[in-house]
Amino acid sequence: MKISIIAFATIAAATLSASVVFAQEPIEPIKPPQSINLGMVELGKKLYFDPRLSKSGFISCNSCHNLSMGGTDNIPTSIGDKWQQGPINAPTVLNSSMNLAQFWDGRAADLKAQAGGPIANPGEMAFSHTLAIDVLESIPAYVREFKQVFDKDKIDIDQVTLAIAEFEKTLVTPNSRFDQWLLGKKDALSADELAGYELFKDSGCTACHNGAAVGGASFERMGIVEPYKTESKAEGRVAVTKEDEDRFNFKVPTLRNVELTYPYFHDGAANTLEEAVDVMGRIQLGKNFSRKQNAQIVAFLKTLTGDQPSFMLPILPPSTNATPRPKPFN
Amino acid sequence: MKISIIAFATIAAATLSASVVFAQEPIEPIKPPQSINLGMVELGKKLYFDPRLSKSGFISCNSCHNLSMGGTDNIPTSIGDKWQQGPINAPTVLNSSMNLAQFWDGRAADLKAQAGGPIANPGEMAFSHTLAIDVLESIPAYVREFKQVFDKDKIDIDQVTLAIAEFEKTLVTPNSRFDQWLLGKKDALSADELAGYELFKDSGCTACHNGAAVGGASFERMGIVEPYKTESKAEGRVAVTKEDEDRFNFKVPTLRNVELTYPYFHDGAANTLEEAVDVMGRIQLGKNFSRKQNAQIVAFLKTLTGDQPSFMLPILPPSTNATPRPKPFN
Repeated sequence: MKISIIAFATIAAATLSASVVFAQEPIEPIKPPQSINLGMVELGKKLYFDPRLSKSGFISCNSCHNLSMGGTDNIPTSIGDKWQQGPINAPTVLNSSMNLAQFWDGRAADLKAQAGGPIANPGEMAFSHTLAIDVLESIPAYVREFKQVFDKDKIDIDQVTLAIAEFEKTLVTPNSRFDQWLLGKKDALSADELAGYELFKDSGCTACHNGAAVGGASFERMGIVEPYKTESKAEGRVAVTKEDEDRFNFKVPTLRNVELTYPYFHDGAANTLEEAVDVMGRIQLGKNFSRKQNAQIVAFLKTLTGDQPSFMLPILPPSTNATPRPKPFN
Repeated sequence: MKISIIAFATIAAATLSASVVFAQEPIEPIKPPQSINLGMVELGKKLYFDPRLSKSGFISCNSCHNLSMGGTDNIPTSIGDKWQQGPINAPTVLNSSMNLAQFWDGRAADLKAQAGGPIANPGEMAFSHTLAIDVLESIPAYVREFKQVFDKDKIDIDQVTLAIAEFEKTLVTPNSRFDQWLLGKKDALSADELAGYELFKDSGCTACHNGAAVGGASFERMGIVEPYKTESKAEGRVAVTKEDEDRFNFKVPTLRNVELTYPYFHDGAANTLEEAVDVMGRIQLGKNFSRKQNAQIVAFLKTLTGDQPSFMLPILPPSTNATPRPKPFN
């Protein structure tokens, strides 16, 4: 955590003097996470990497939200238990604490509510909360660490998801070149990148992609000016609200680290940033960006890649004779 | 690498004064890796964690030789592309540089020869060496890093497997309590653990499980005194030598970190160390260990758990528009 803490200290200092500069911009620099419980983070990190929270013993949170790869799996839709094809593109876990809600349809209010979903989803980790707790309770090193962090007699799923969420709160990516520019380093961006940012604002992209996460703050219709053509059966927010007007409304994805989080859109159908910018321009804004404009916007978007979370690979406590064994093939 | 280097310095110093003690023992302390190319290690670490070396973009070396879990996957046989069931238990990558050859049947002479196998195996990563090189060549950060390390015009599979092997050479686990004891710390083991070690020697286990890796130095028949009953179709060394006398001969697995590398045997059929010790005693040595003897041997085996490799989770360079995309579902 050392690197991140130093980076944040730098930002905090710079924030004071530069607040006037970016107060007028629709995008804000990433803020350091607040009120972090470091013991809970270390426990949550282990759980995030532990495939024993899946039926097969093969799939962990990190399988589809891979922190070596921008917090995603970089495939159109994820691979679940027994190689089931997921229904939707895995959103990045990076900066996800800033989202107004979790999942593309916002069906989880926060990271804690999200974390329990995949564990028990038959198409993803295919386990159950009860079985996951049985595994953890059978491992003395986990029992001790939960006791230390939560001081309860027994492990329960609330503790598990709280710890995972606390780790995820630390997965922010400060210090992108764009944030450096916002914070006063005027040579942090090239002329083309700046031109791309101006286009991004002037074209209306910032109506939805704004704030510290450059997205994540609202649900919006995919296909405002013209319908979006897709093979995907996902209908978005309507699954939660049951309101017809929410059909094809999806949570606006963050554009932080968008260079790393390909392929794009809820169906993962856009392989490149150029394609994603082109489609967004046409179906959301009714704009046909020229090749040069497209390249400038893409150049701007690549300045949103921040420092990736940096930490030691966690070493997991071993199972014991009492630990229920994974069932990968039945 | 800092922790490991300090640990090795300590061992090296202790080795001088304690060499007389363990010279008489059939097990030797783990030695630090020699002549390591650190640039190659850093590149190999990225490749080891990169699922883009698989057809699906989902399976990396670390998927089945998970460095959070003793360098194994802790399931009886591994999961390959499209959830194919592997034919054999994934051996630990930890201390594997000390093996006389790689794979259970020794069909790869060394780690470099091993590393290319799973990438191109249709049942594992299901890719090809040519396709893997195409991916790497499309990623400028990889091209630069290969150029820096190997100073060649193009990336080839020899460089890829050399780098992975160089990283794997660093995956040794010094400083187990047993090594501390060998090196002169006489209170590092309990009376039961010492009794287990004496039993381990006196019963003949060290005929095969000896040296620094406590195994890995020979091929031996599975089922010397009585036949081993298994569902597995693996026939071991005969697949390489075509000699009938090598049928059911397998490379003796290392017992280093055996507490972490469950389940046991080439078929992964033994879930617990108690079961593994019992079966080995009966079918290899014709011995029925009492419950107390079994517990003492198990207690000794658990002292072979060493310091696990400790390093930052690698951040992988992103794909570009030119990078061939993974094909997880076709």
